[in-house]
Parts: sequence; C-alpha cells; structure tokens
Amino acid sequence: MRISEIAQEATTPLTAVKYYQREGLLPPGEKTAPNQTSYDDRHVRRVRLVRALLEVGGLSVAATKDVLAALDADDAPLAEAFAAAQHAMSSPRAHDAAPSPAARERVAALTSAAGWATTDENPGLDAAARALDGLATIDFEPTDDYLQAYLTAAATAARADVEALGGRHDRDDVAELMVVGTVLGDPLFAGLRRLAHEDVTHDLFPVADQDGRRS
Amino acid sequence: MRISEIAQEATTPLTAVKYYQREGLLPPGEKTAPNQTSYDDRHVRRVRLVRALLEVGGLSVAATKDVLAALDADDAPLAEAFAAAQHAMSSPRAHDAAPSPAARERVAALTSAAGWATTDENPGLDAAARALDGLATIDFEPTDDYLQAYLTAAATAARADVEALGGRHDRDDVAELMVVGTVLGDPLFAGLRRLAHEDVTHDLFPVADQDGRRS
Repeated sequence: MRISEIAQEATTPLTAVKYYQREGLLPPGEKTAPNQTSYDDRHVRRVRLVRALLEVGGLSVAATKDVLAALDADDAPLAEAFAAAQHAMSSPRAHDAAPSPAARERVAALTSAAGWATTDENPGLDAAARALDGLATIDFEPTDDYLQAYLTAAATAARADVEALGGRHDRDDVAELMVVGTVLGDPLFAGLRRLAHEDVTHDLFPVADQDGRRS
Repeated sequence: MRISEIAQEATTPLTAVKYYQREGLLPPGEKTAPNQTSYDDRHVRRVRLVRALLEVGGLSVAATKDVLAALDADDAPLAEAFAAAQHAMSSPRAHDAAPSPAARERVAALTSAAGWATTDENPGLDAAARALDGLATIDFEPTDDYLQAYLTAAATAARADVEALGGRHDRDDVAELMVVGTVLGDPLFAGLRRLAHEDVTHDLFPVADQDGRRS
C-alpha cells in the first residue's frame, strides 16, 4: 500500500498521516525501491489508533509516543506495559503543582479502607488528590459519602475494563485494549456523567420550556 | 488589596495572576487613585477558581472564560447556567470529528433504556459517542454489560454531585459547585479509576517484585 491508500483506508486526512509519520508515531514502511515505500494493514490500524489517542483521548504527541512504546515492548510483562502506559497517560503537565499532602493522604486512606491493593507510584493518586485540592479552592470539602460514590463508580468501571480483556487472547490485542480503554474510558465516563447530570438535575431545577410548560 | 497580595493570598505566582488578568479572566478591580487599583477577597477566590479550571480541569482559556460567564450570569436560572457551563466545558476542539451516527444512536438507546431524561443537545452524547468510535478503531465493540457498567458509574457519580449541592444554599455557591464539580469530577474519577485498575489487575496479572516474590 502507498501512504495515500493508508490515509484512505484509515479514513484519515493524508496531511494527518504525514504528520504522524513526521512525529515518529508510525513504524517505518518497507523500502521497495529507492523512492518507494510500502505499507500494510498494521499501518492502517496504527493510524487509527494514533488518531483516537490524540483526538478523542486528548493525549499530547509525546504522551502518545510513550503509550505506543509501552504497547510495542513485546517482551515486557503485560502488567508492566499497563503501568508504563498509565504513567504516560497521566504524566503531569509541566506546570502541574504537586497535590497537597493532606489530599494525597485522604485519597490513600480511602482506597486503603476500601481494601484496594495499590502502590504509591500509581499516578492516579496524585491526579485524584489534585482534583480534591481544586475542589478545596471553592471551599468544597467533599464528604466521605461523596468520595465513596466516586470510589464505587471507579471500581465499577475498572472491573468492566478488566472483564472486557477476557474476550481477547492475543497478547497484542490485550495490551491494545488495556491502553486504549484506559485513555478512552475517561471521555466515555465524562460524556455519560454529563448526560446523567441532566437527568438528575431535571427534577431539582425544572426549567420552563418554550411553551411555558415545566419539563 | 494590591495585586501582589492577591497572588500571595491565593498562593499563585504573580506572573500567573497577571496572565489571568491580561486574558480577561478576572473582574476589574476598583480604581482608588489614577495609578492604583484595589482588589478584594472575591478576586482571591476567583484567582483560585481560574487556576483550578485551567490547571486541574485542563480547560482552555476560552473555555474557562465561557464557564465564568455562565457562573456570573446572575439572572439566568440555575439549570441554564449549568447547561451553558456544560457546553463550554465539553465544546469540541476544532479538529474533533463528529461521532458516527451508529455510536450516537447506541448511546442514546442506552440512556433511554435506563430511563434517563436527556436532550439531544447534551454535549455528553457526542463525547461518549466519540469515545465509542475511538474504541472501534481497535476493533473493540463494547458489550452492553460493559456500557451498562459505565452508565451505572456515571449515574453514581452524578447523584453524589447533585446531593453535594444540597449542602449549599447561596445561589452563587450552588452555581460554583455545579460548574467546578463538573470540571473536576472528571480527573477525580480518572485518578481513582487508575488506582482501581491496579487493584483489579493485581490478581489477573501478578508481577514479581524486586525480591522475586509475587505480590
């Protein structure tokens, strides 16, 4: 396949495919002649994956590169590839402040009370603690019930993620779903939570529709 | 208060406060003399809020401005302010593709089967559908059970969000928590899901620790 065919197969603009290539996000093709390179189905699949990570997952090019490297490390145990990908996906941006020790301790205490086996290096700890610090800026101190609801929600989603892996047997397939599922589960949840908000606020804060009826 | 005191009170670098001011994210202070402007506690609080939206929530300056405008529209009914803020927070980036009609229909069918009262304009619909399209790029077709787990997770979190509002009575306080909670609930969930992943994969994919023991 030529690069224009890759773009067509992946329904991705050719300019985007060339950009991914320039940024080192695609494996090299096979040189079939001095000025001709041939690509195959794996390239089509990789183009789709890169696009999903960048556009839907909102990852930076650098984070995408790290995630792909974790995926491609064939010899690493799956759990290590997963951990590496999680770090790449959660890597704090340059200007991110460290979370407060109090927020970090609160998250750690909650997960430990829930019996979760986690390590201090899990990037989720800082991410959740930073969110708590953000809520504290508007003087919102979440109750234990509030945090417990989020903990339950996270466990429900994570269990579904891991169960979905059971349907895949090829190592590359499992690794791909681990990584992509981790990235795309966030916007999936975010979208559904927006929908749920509308449903649950409906009764609390009724708005009159155009005909003046209360919906 | 002078602007340097605002920065100190909000524990935010002065350069950041000046940047927010230049970008129109802070209300003007009161001119007390030709070359002197005075600020008050509301400015401190706004600086903290802007920082949380930008740094923890990961919003763009433009989206932050839209969220603040929704917050400051005193005469709008709360549900409208909430909807406006949700749109600002979920506004697709310029290069976002529209989701496939099939993915959109699947999300709509699920929420409708769950009895959720939502409108077609809810930005969560496209966001969730785009995530499904992203998963399809790696040939992952989520089962109904998988999506149902995410639906349950989203409903659990959304209910907690709305219950938390019950503790606040002042209109500005309620609006602030609605908006900030919507932005920061996403990274809170994302962080906790990373932690839950580690817990649930622990048994599935044991990794030998440094001493060779299986943890």
